[in-house]
Amino acid sequence: MRFETIIVQEAPRKITATISRPNRGNSINSTLIHELGAALDLAERLPRCRTLVLEGAPGLFCTGMDFQEVATNSGVEATETVGISDYMLLLKRFTLSSKVIVCRLDGKVIAGGVGLVAASDIVISTERTEFSLSEALWGLLPCCVIPFLIRRVGFQKAYFMTLTTKPVSASEACAIHLVDELTDNLEESLRKLTLRLNLLDDNTIVDMKRYFQKMGGITLELEQAATTEIARLVAQPHVQQNIANYVTQGAFPWERKV
Amino acid sequence: MRFETIIVQEAPRKITATISRPNRGNSINSTLIHELGAALDLAERLPRCRTLVLEGAPGLFCTGMDFQEVATNSGVEATETVGISDYMLLLKRFTLSSKVIVCRLDGKVIAGGVGLVAASDIVISTERTEFSLSEALWGLLPCCVIPFLIRRVGFQKAYFMTLTTKPVSASEACAIHLVDELTDNLEESLRKLTLRLNLLDDNTIVDMKRYFQKMGGITLELEQAATTEIARLVAQPHVQQNIANYVTQGAFPWERKV
Amino acid sequence: MRFETIIVQEAPRKITATISRPNRGNSINSTLIHELGAALDLAERLPRCRTLVLEGAPGLFCTGMDFQEVATNSGVEATETVGISDYMLLLKRFTLSSKVIVCRLDGKVIAGGVGLVAASDIVISTERTEFSLSEALWGLLPCCVIPFLIRRVGFQKAYFMTLTTKPVSASEACAIHLVDELTDNLEESLRKLTLRLNLLDDNTIVDMKRYFQKMGGITLELEQAATTEIARLVAQPHVQQNIANYVTQGAFPWERKV
Repeated sequence: MRFETIIVQEAPRKITATISRPNRGNSINSTLIHELGAALDLAERLPRCRTLVLEGAPGLFCTGMDFQEVATNSGVEATETVGISDYMLLLKRFTLSSKVIVCRLDGKVIAGGVGLVAASDIVISTERTEFSLSEALWGLLPCCVIPFLIRRVGFQKAYFMTLTTKPVSASEACAIHLVDELTDNLEESLRKLTLRLNLLDDNTIVDMKRYFQKMGGITLELEQAATTEIARLVAQPHVQQNIANYVTQGAFPWERKV
Repeated sequence: MRFETIIVQEAPRKITATISRPNRGNSINSTLIHELGAALDLAERLPRCRTLVLEGAPGLFCTGMDFQEVATNSGVEATETVGISDYMLLLKRFTLSSKVIVCRLDGKVIAGGVGLVAASDIVISTERTEFSLSEALWGLLPCCVIPFLIRRVGFQKAYFMTLTTKPVSASEACAIHLVDELTDNLEESLRKLTLRLNLLDDNTIVDMKRYFQKMGGITLELEQAATTEIARLVAQPHVQQNIANYVTQGAFPWERKV
Repeated sequence: MRFETIIVQEAPRKITATISRPNRGNSINSTLIHELGAALDLAERLPRCRTLVLEGAPGLFCTGMDFQEVATNSGVEATETVGISDYMLLLKRFTLSSKVIVCRLDGKVIAGGVGLVAASDIVISTERTEFSLSEALWGLLPCCVIPFLIRRVGFQKAYFMTLTTKPVSASEACAIHLVDELTDNLEESLRKLTLRLNLLDDNTIVDMKRYFQKMGGITLELEQAATTEIARLVAQPHVQQNIANYVTQGAFPWERKV
């Protein structure tokens, strides 16, 4: 299989998917969502594979939704444009797959990128990672991210990040459990972690994920609330205008207000 | 509008409400609950206003329910006496208002005062703040506080504070997310924070609050459980006796037991 | 009453139950579950008693389920064998009793032992305590532990501990609220704590536990999901084989895989 937006490497017991859209700030478009799903398919077809490692470029993991694509397809139904349902399904699939999804972070994580991280099973990170939820500045909300984020950091910190839009450093993120392990040697941390994970069976991982889903999972009701609300917010004329101004003139909405 | 229990200051983009009952330890009576609601009305009528800042006196934010008033009105239905329903409605309103409620703390926060803090959107504090839930010592429980506190600090820490009645320092409170930012310069922290908040629209704030309400909000069922239980507890004869002993003789219930 | 698996000491205001199965690594068998219940009965019959203190041996609190007993009784219905329902009922009872359950930790806490800790009201510990959930290595899950653990440490940390099976140090456990107080003087910490707790009434403690049960308790549905799932997992042939290999040859399942 050929990939346009990710680079996929196979090792005996893990698949690594590296987000690679250098000219678009590693943003999320429908091809990327589709290809991350395909990388997970690949991992799931290999019985000895235990882990899907997700990473970005040095300094930049992912900047969230590709506004260029949203603007281009503005005739299309908003939910479809940005692949919202597919994005939500991908996050959900991370939490139910027989493979362990490990995020390997070494750079900025913005908006929808935070969802990929929050839905991952394990997050390891260097000090230079920084997380921000910038959606509110655009008149949007990180609707699909929030349920997964609440499971990791609790209600208040998810709310605080959404409301203040303030970047959170890697060490703060570790203190609130958005990062599971802070390291200055990602390779070594990943090696130790996968040694442990390789001792588990696929069945045990599936049983575990299903069980935790029962104990505090994201219900179908919340899932639908998320996709419905983000679709509503994106379709608002002032949000469409904010996106258009950015795509055509590089202007951020907050520059008009300061 | 004239206020008896708070001092209200208007700035172009924020309203500040300072709790001011110096002779009653900044405790909560029905007038205070009513006037805090009026200050929020005022903020909501000003379209450019973004923030309602809530503060107390230096060294003392709020000591909770005014037992003097409870004792005086002991003929009245217990829930009404202490304005329980109105207090609960005020906390709920904080979590749904189009204005951002910021608590600015620099002193003790006791019992019902913790509810005002826990229900606020953002809490900034100096090191000299200290939180305590002393209700259990009186045979009471912080029923209305607990659901808001759990959203901030999680189940166990809310339980631990209630059970041990032990004061929690500002830095501990920050570690468990009851305080969002610890600062030695409240003015500067508030300035930076409001600069960010001023970039958001009222609509976005309302959308955000409604969405978080869906994702982990306090249900009507919990709300009613809270007001019903606190009314039951206050009405108990031994609790009424504890309050009467305090009001008439200044005697704390635990002094009989040590 | 005579006890086989615990040592019970009565003081005027507290009962101490010391887990004592030195030849079986302080593991949990049905006698231990039964006797811990009996110690709690004893505490509940003494009106002046406020606290049930639960402790293990120096260096070792509890290693979880006694696999020797599971293997011996392999003819019996799996749930009955390991006393799962009784174990779950004991944990539930901790969270509803009029006595405050205090865990006093100074050593390893493994698998089902973590459940005793997580369900306790208050946990104090020295630095040498270490927690691990090793179940997944055996093809099992800590089904009964997880709902209580989530209430203490939140979803992600409970999940992380289950998935990685990695030991958590006492100070990490304190940071995530599995330990409430870290101390180098357990006796002194316990003394101060019980002084505070002795100021409360039994009624207040019962009211508090019932109220918190409403605010974020473990529902009957979750309870049943837990016991059903652990019974299913234990009954699996490969799990029975893992247990048999360990009991007859001292072989751990992961030794075959490394």
